[in-house]
Amino acid sequence: MTFSKAILEGDRLALARLLTKVENDSQEGRDALMELFPHTGRAHLIGVTGAPGTGKSSLVNQLALHYRKTENKRIAIIAVDPSSPFTGGAVLGDRVRMRDLSGDSGVFIRSMASRGSLGGLAQATANITQVFDAAGFDIVIVETVGAGQSEVDIARLAHTTLVVEAPGLGDDIQAIKAGILEIADILVVNKADRPGVEQTEKALKTMLELAHPAERVFKHHGVTMSVSAPKRNEAAKMWIPPIQRTISTEGAGIPELADAIARHVAHLTSSGEWADRERTRLEVELEALIRQGLMNRFREEVAAGAYEKALESVIQRKMSPLEAAASLMNGRLK
Amino acid sequence: MTFSKAILEGDRLALARLLTKVENDSQEGRDALMELFPHTGRAHLIGVTGAPGTGKSSLVNQLALHYRKTENKRIAIIAVDPSSPFTGGAVLGDRVRMRDLSGDSGVFIRSMASRGSLGGLAQATANITQVFDAAGFDIVIVETVGAGQSEVDIARLAHTTLVVEAPGLGDDIQAIKAGILEIADILVVNKADRPGVEQTEKALKTMLELAHPAERVFKHHGVTMSVSAPKRNEAAKMWIPPIQRTISTEGAGIPELADAIARHVAHLTSSGEWADRERTRLEVELEALIRQGLMNRFREEVAAGAYEKALESVIQRKMSPLEAAASLMNGRLK
Repeated sequence: MTFSKAILEGDRLALARLLTKVENDSQEGRDALMELFPHTGRAHLIGVTGAPGTGKSSLVNQLALHYRKTENKRIAIIAVDPSSPFTGGAVLGDRVRMRDLSGDSGVFIRSMASRGSLGGLAQATANITQVFDAAGFDIVIVETVGAGQSEVDIARLAHTTLVVEAPGLGDDIQAIKAGILEIADILVVNKADRPGVEQTEKALKTMLELAHPAERVFKHHGVTMSVSAPKRNEAAKMWIPPIQRTISTEGAGIPELADAIARHVAHLTSSGEWADRERTRLEVELEALIRQGLMNRFREEVAAGAYEKALESVIQRKMSPLEAAASLMNGRLK
Repeated sequence: MTFSKAILEGDRLALARLLTKVENDSQEGRDALMELFPHTGRAHLIGVTGAPGTGKSSLVNQLALHYRKTENKRIAIIAVDPSSPFTGGAVLGDRVRMRDLSGDSGVFIRSMASRGSLGGLAQATANITQVFDAAGFDIVIVETVGAGQSEVDIARLAHTTLVVEAPGLGDDIQAIKAGILEIADILVVNKADRPGVEQTEKALKTMLELAHPAERVFKHHGVTMSVSAPKRNEAAKMWIPPIQRTISTEGAGIPELADAIARHVAHLTSSGEWADRERTRLEVELEALIRQGLMNRFREEVAAGAYEKALESVIQRKMSPLEAAASLMNGRLK
């Protein structure tokens, strides 16, 4: 039986094995992805991002538990860790997360180590998301470490993006610098039992007000996107990111957070933005694949020694990187 | 007079104007970069990265002040901010930093907002670094917000990478998750007057020991690199990242940090690793330029409607992204 068939039939072991193949970008993985693709487009993708120390992992844990208990939804969690190969960070993080969720067949957790190139990580995350989507998971939560542009880029491709903050993580300037506010559909102030929660919330509110007028809020998902700016002129279609307080260690505020997420889904559907975000996400993916394909083709076509020769000229400052790139692309270096 | 000539003659206004042109990737900027490239390769590039709240900016500020006072070196600072266009984070951050350094003609500070694509930011940072290098700045400090893969990637291309931590930023797991330890040449525990400094230092030491045996420490800059693994077999060439305590608000520990940086430069030179890192950096840059060039050429060559048609097929799940990319690349969609 093919991978894709086994996965459509709910084979958990096949799913785990395919995820590895997809993450490694193997041919078998690529074939399965193509077969599975027509079955995608149903899952609700939730991105969760925030700086280290905000308690994202336990928040994701609690949210998943909530969905399991109240709505019996099937949940996949993808933890995108730029963790070191030697610290085993991903494994440790998983262990903590898994305690409450392990043994539940309606939950599947996958950690992704950051491997090499950035494009690779974003692409692998997109592919893994597609596999979960096709496998019938209702909600796919992508957790990223945040504060970094790449993680933000990964999270922003979700239907609903949660940005998690916590009191006492540094001064206001640092909070502003993190600069991930504009991608938030929902702001979560986690660890809300800590001193300084009012201050954090106030700072977030001020920044949200700065983000007005409304069209700026609307544009926040379109910043890096090149085509098809959607028409969102009607005030009725406005979405102002709510601020939700949670204490994820105790589960406080989680039902309210889930309600806010549900309201956002309703907003996305009624405003037509769900379709806009689907389009954007698939376009970003298509472009990444083309980029990768072009580079692979280039590597095959360029003569073996030409690349090394060009690099050597650059190192010796005989040729600028721009000149070397142009020469290689035009086949002038053999 | 051309830009490059004015800059080589120390024209500060021309420098500021060129930086903008280079950041915007204009033709004029590209031309100047080519002319300036033969004059690069002399500056010491220092990357400074760490999570929000570690006090990186004031550390960079103090370090620059130190170099100005004791060695009269010319310093350029590039602050890579994934900051929002509307929060004005970069401007605020600059204001704080500038207080001590403004008016000093031996210092030049440049903030880079993250614009669109990641490749773009990394590339723009590399180009800006080259301009400063050619303009005769002895030290170029690139400060990145850290914790994110892209920022880590930018910082890792420096000759010397400082990873800044601070006590009390979260539990051990979060610290491990940040996963930026393996790129550190020097670990800085800033805010060392805070409670928990011993604990933070101990955690860092443990992780460094995990990173042993020595060859792993050596490999830390080669993780994403594809070619020319350097031979570093001799024990004499070993570099174990030292841990330096600082209190940047008071300037405490800054001379010792500068000493550690000087020792690292001596190590890089004597071990031949300086040349290795130069090669790696230029190779990464060359590849990024080729990638960008291939994509530009593709955009010119593909028929106007073909791309949109392929995207539409993907959105309607008639074609997978992989199939669409292959079709476009092979000119099968007209």
